[in-house]
Amino acid sequence: MGISDEQKVGFMGSCKRKLISVVGRIKKLGRDDPRRIIHSLKVGLALTFVSLLYYWRPLYDGFGIASIWAVLTVVVVFEFTVGATLSKGLNRGLGTLLAGALGVGAQHFASLFGQTGEPIVLGIFVFLLAAASTFSRFFPRIKARYDYGVLIFILTFSLVSVSGYRVEKILELAHQRLSTILIGGATCVFISLFICPVWAGETLHNTIASNIEKLANYLEGFGGEYFQYEDNEESIIVEDHSKLHNKLSSLQAYKSVLTSQSSEESLANLASWEPKHGKFSFGHPWKQYLKIGSLTRQCAYQIESLNGYVIPADIQVAIQFRRRIEESCKAISTESGKALRILASSIKAMTNPSSSSKTHIENAKAAIDDLKHTLKSGYLESSDLLGIIPDATVCCILIDIVKSVEKISEATD
Amino acid sequence: MGISDEQKVGFMGSCKRKLISVVGRIKKLGRDDPRRIIHSLKVGLALTFVSLLYYWRPLYDGFGIASIWAVLTVVVVFEFTVGATLSKGLNRGLGTLLAGALGVGAQHFASLFGQTGEPIVLGIFVFLLAAASTFSRFFPRIKARYDYGVLIFILTFSLVSVSGYRVEKILELAHQRLSTILIGGATCVFISLFICPVWAGETLHNTIASNIEKLANYLEGFGGEYFQYEDNEESIIVEDHSKLHNKLSSLQAYKSVLTSQSSEESLANLASWEPKHGKFSFGHPWKQYLKIGSLTRQCAYQIESLNGYVIPADIQVAIQFRRRIEESCKAISTESGKALRILASSIKAMTNPSSSSKTHIENAKAAIDDLKHTLKSGYLESSDLLGIIPDATVCCILIDIVKSVEKISEATD
Repeated sequence: MGISDEQKVGFMGSCKRKLISVVGRIKKLGRDDPRRIIHSLKVGLALTFVSLLYYWRPLYDGFGIASIWAVLTVVVVFEFTVGATLSKGLNRGLGTLLAGALGVGAQHFASLFGQTGEPIVLGIFVFLLAAASTFSRFFPRIKARYDYGVLIFILTFSLVSVSGYRVEKILELAHQRLSTILIGGATCVFISLFICPVWAGETLHNTIASNIEKLANYLEGFGGEYFQYEDNEESIIVEDHSKLHNKLSSLQAYKSVLTSQSSEESLANLASWEPKHGKFSFGHPWKQYLKIGSLTRQCAYQIESLNGYVIPADIQVAIQFRRRIEESCKAISTESGKALRILASSIKAMTNPSSSSKTHIENAKAAIDDLKHTLKSGYLESSDLLGIIPDATVCCILIDIVKSVEKISEATD
Repeated sequence: MGISDEQKVGFMGSCKRKLISVVGRIKKLGRDDPRRIIHSLKVGLALTFVSLLYYWRPLYDGFGIASIWAVLTVVVVFEFTVGATLSKGLNRGLGTLLAGALGVGAQHFASLFGQTGEPIVLGIFVFLLAAASTFSRFFPRIKARYDYGVLIFILTFSLVSVSGYRVEKILELAHQRLSTILIGGATCVFISLFICPVWAGETLHNTIASNIEKLANYLEGFGGEYFQYEDNEESIIVEDHSKLHNKLSSLQAYKSVLTSQSSEESLANLASWEPKHGKFSFGHPWKQYLKIGSLTRQCAYQIESLNGYVIPADIQVAIQFRRRIEESCKAISTESGKALRILASSIKAMTNPSSSSKTHIENAKAAIDDLKHTLKSGYLESSDLLGIIPDATVCCILIDIVKSVEKISEATD
């Protein structure tokens, strides 16, 4: 009423813009990893499938109201990767079985104490078991692999022992519930295994390889960025900082490696639940990936310090010295980058790293020797120690990086 | 029978040893953080309390079989910190309400399609909503705060719309279920809020302060470890590596800071759900803690590279040069350590950092100037550039560390 047409158009426009931005974000999320869309459809499929238990009369007559447990199981068990789904499914199954048996036992034992004693004894049981199981979840090893199972254990034990107090046909109830949980779990496992499976192991494998590649990218680009000055100038051309930053941002992918530990560990844990698939057998040495991952991270820390010297410090740089070390430093960084790239692609292809990666490491080492020789025989034109400090640091870090690269190479053998 | 007494004793002994080691580990887990024991007891208490719904006749008559939802809610909602419990409880409540309403609506709409059409329409609804909700869980922002709520949304929508097909009194069912979930959720929130509460915010606060303290410990100890040589020798006494490592291990606590990002982020997320407690109001600037945390981590990366030079490299060290820089370097590292210690304790006490932390930073800067002066005026006795490289690197990293410390100090203001 009081709203003018202009305001209306403005409001519609802003709504439209918002909608477009949301749609754009959704599209991006799907494009970044199309497996997400497929996963969503798979969950929908699994849920619709277990709903059949309700819609189809003969099935419903068999399971009755317990069918909701199939729906519940699908919702909580279906995870993105096969490993996570298997781990949750097995945890749920084992936890339910164990706790169900214990619960029936506890209920039976408590019934010996008569009408008034029974709820008290049951209450004590529930209290003790819940407290003890909750505490066990703080153990790192249980937390990592069986957290969900313990949760289900507490849940089922409480449900069975407590509801056994009211429900007469407890065994029939347990049987119904267990079979519907099995149906739900089996549906999840089947769909996640056979329809476009997402393997945690494969994801870990690719993550490790692409992390190494990110470091390789940085090292191959480093020399060109660091030793950048016009030849006819005595001092280094300090480029516009923001411009330099833009140029470097394509190299900054390595930063994600710094914080990759927790995701690698959880992937390795999930991968250990997965059966043989593709090139990976059950019992594939996933721990080795963690070792390579942690060595890669170590190398990323070194690159992080190296990266601090690409933007010139406020210390005046001694140009002669930098020119002297340029060739060796460039060689060290490029050769170690090449070695890493070969290692990454040999990990990806699961072949033994060809000897060429070792050749590159040897080249890098030879360049280190050159560098050391230059430094030993050299003298300082201006005795300006301060000016050479950043360059000296870069040399030192590069030498350390070659050591790290060698360690990664040994670990991938 | 065939087992000799000796074997028996051996078996009993190994059992006993195992038992003792398990008991020892349990004790250690409890001693490291007594809040774990209290938490376990609280979970037991909450579960026993909601079991009353079953044992007490009048209550059971009111809720009937729906009482299991109270037990279920307690098991899945009760978390270690108040923030996590509140977040899960609210997520559960909101998800259930929203999905319940939608589910009843969908059920009503589907019933318009007659006996045969109804299950088909319901199936399509379940499929679409489950797929869309599952996809929304991939959005990082939804993942961080509402992951559990979306899960419950899918769960409840499927349950209500599907079971509505069979259950006539769907509104009564929904009402019963909602009230028992409310009882379960309220029990959790009440117990976790009022019995020895564990606040995520406080934990974050203490973690950040103790992380800074760990760096301070390292920096204060660094000088003594690095500049260690007998005065009457020309070359540095390279101590037994393992011995040196032992000495340093007390300083290695900083390494845990390198990988603290994910736990800090999840604590900050949980803390934002918590009401006012102690010195922390609702809406406390938790993001600021993340900023300080990330600056601290940056500094830890630098210390990680510094740490690489404490164990002497295979490069022969130029002893005169090291003596020359010793005083300034020790001063830089000790003063920045002291500044960090004061910052840590002022964060702990939530006071404005006293000016003394700034004084220490100024002292460190003065020491940097001294160092620069030494380096500028200095000349190399032996023109052995190679030998000074590790020391030059240490100088450079120390200078960077002072910059990081200053940034941390600015962020804590």
